[in-house]
Amino acid sequence: MSQKEKLLIVKIGGKVLEDPAAVDRFAQIVAGLPHKTLIVHGGGRTATDLSKKLGLEIKMIEGRRITDKDTLEVATMVYAGLLNKKLVALLQSYGVDGLGLSGADLNTIKSFRREVKTIDYGFVGDIEIINSSRIHQLIESGITPAFCALTHDGKGQLLNTNADSIAAMLAEAMAPYYEVELYFGFELDGIYTDLEEENSKPLETISMDQFKQMKVSGQINLGMIPKVDNAFYAYLKGASKVFICNLESLADYPAIRGTEIC
Amino acid sequence: MSQKEKLLIVKIGGKVLEDPAAVDRFAQIVAGLPHKTLIVHGGGRTATDLSKKLGLEIKMIEGRRITDKDTLEVATMVYAGLLNKKLVALLQSYGVDGLGLSGADLNTIKSFRREVKTIDYGFVGDIEIINSSRIHQLIESGITPAFCALTHDGKGQLLNTNADSIAAMLAEAMAPYYEVELYFGFELDGIYTDLEEENSKPLETISMDQFKQMKVSGQINLGMIPKVDNAFYAYLKGASKVFICNLESLADYPAIRGTEIC
Repeated sequence: MSQKEKLLIVKIGGKVLEDPAAVDRFAQIVAGLPHKTLIVHGGGRTATDLSKKLGLEIKMIEGRRITDKDTLEVATMVYAGLLNKKLVALLQSYGVDGLGLSGADLNTIKSFRREVKTIDYGFVGDIEIINSSRIHQLIESGITPAFCALTHDGKGQLLNTNADSIAAMLAEAMAPYYEVELYFGFELDGIYTDLEEENSKPLETISMDQFKQMKVSGQINLGMIPKVDNAFYAYLKGASKVFICNLESLADYPAIRGTEIC
Repeated sequence: MSQKEKLLIVKIGGKVLEDPAAVDRFAQIVAGLPHKTLIVHGGGRTATDLSKKLGLEIKMIEGRRITDKDTLEVATMVYAGLLNKKLVALLQSYGVDGLGLSGADLNTIKSFRREVKTIDYGFVGDIEIINSSRIHQLIESGITPAFCALTHDGKGQLLNTNADSIAAMLAEAMAPYYEVELYFGFELDGIYTDLEEENSKPLETISMDQFKQMKVSGQINLGMIPKVDNAFYAYLKGASKVFICNLESLADYPAIRGTEIC
């Protein structure tokens, strides 16, 4: 039996981040969790909204967003500013000692700009090094880190980095210190094979074989695939439990409504 | 003679923040400073630009900006996001272990929303408590904190707070731990009695009596008055040196080009 203390890594995504009341509720839920917690959040929808208001063109190639200079500025404003600081202020209001971080802060997450092969994704970073000892120090001093989806290259450049990937790689990086549980939280009760079908129920568990079959049969939402890939990554790299789950159900921890990776 | 170590508090303001090359140069200068450093920055001009792009009305009463909900969101995006994270990424690139903070992060600066007497300034906070022991811990662990001009009320609400006031009150709060020097840095060489006049030279020093006279005679720029008020506040509350100075001249520390409070 593991002697390590638990660390809950919670990725907050989906529509929750756009709804001030839901973010407030999330902060309240975090305050009630019985273990040390680390938060990761995205914010793509809010960034898209701001881009539209500013009249910026949203560039997509093969379903992936291209981060040009203006898009990176919008991401920096929305992720590290608006969403991160609102969340931290709410965490503090519930007595959680939140600290909002980008990967540049304390050099916590260094990445390299994605190589241009056929597509230039722009200012997008793939994670290179996570400063796990520094993050461990923060957590051990009673702090709840809240990471936004930005990293840096160590040469002064911020980079847009997928929040699910940050959550998965943080789970891997913190596994030597803690028994890590990873929760990809959003507004649904897990992975559905057919969301359109009435009375459709989410999967209780998903295995790698099942996931592969579902990809082939098209029984899984395209947008869900990278998230599940990240979930399996974390599971294989040392997370003791990985769920894709309803964020609200964390209030009933450890009774989670979601799909468990197995 | 004081046995305390020095802490340099540097407020970065004026046009410097709008110019990426100048922010890069500032980060380089900070890396060369021979003492522990804490940074405070504003960003009003950039926030005004974004407000205009978004078609928001800039509301001013008696020369003071009114922070309505939208203006607070813009300030949160620009101060805590865009400017703060770019600065931190640049600090890291020069080997300075920067940590960007709003007052909500780690509950470092709590404020109360300014009372409505004749004017409702909106979401503007006047500082109530600075968590100086927490900031001391950060600095002692080798971190260079970089505060933006946002605080929180402890009840989940972010508040816009003047960066000069934050710098002055941080100088007061850190004075029990360090021999604090405070530098209000911008693009000019100090306080001028007449900027219009050719060959006009900045004051080498300014005393409280001189400042009072200048206010009466109108020999001081109206926008400069709150800054100088904050400078005197810090000086009277324990800062060992206070300068209103050219940011670039910090590269020649301790030979500063600026006006010293005396």
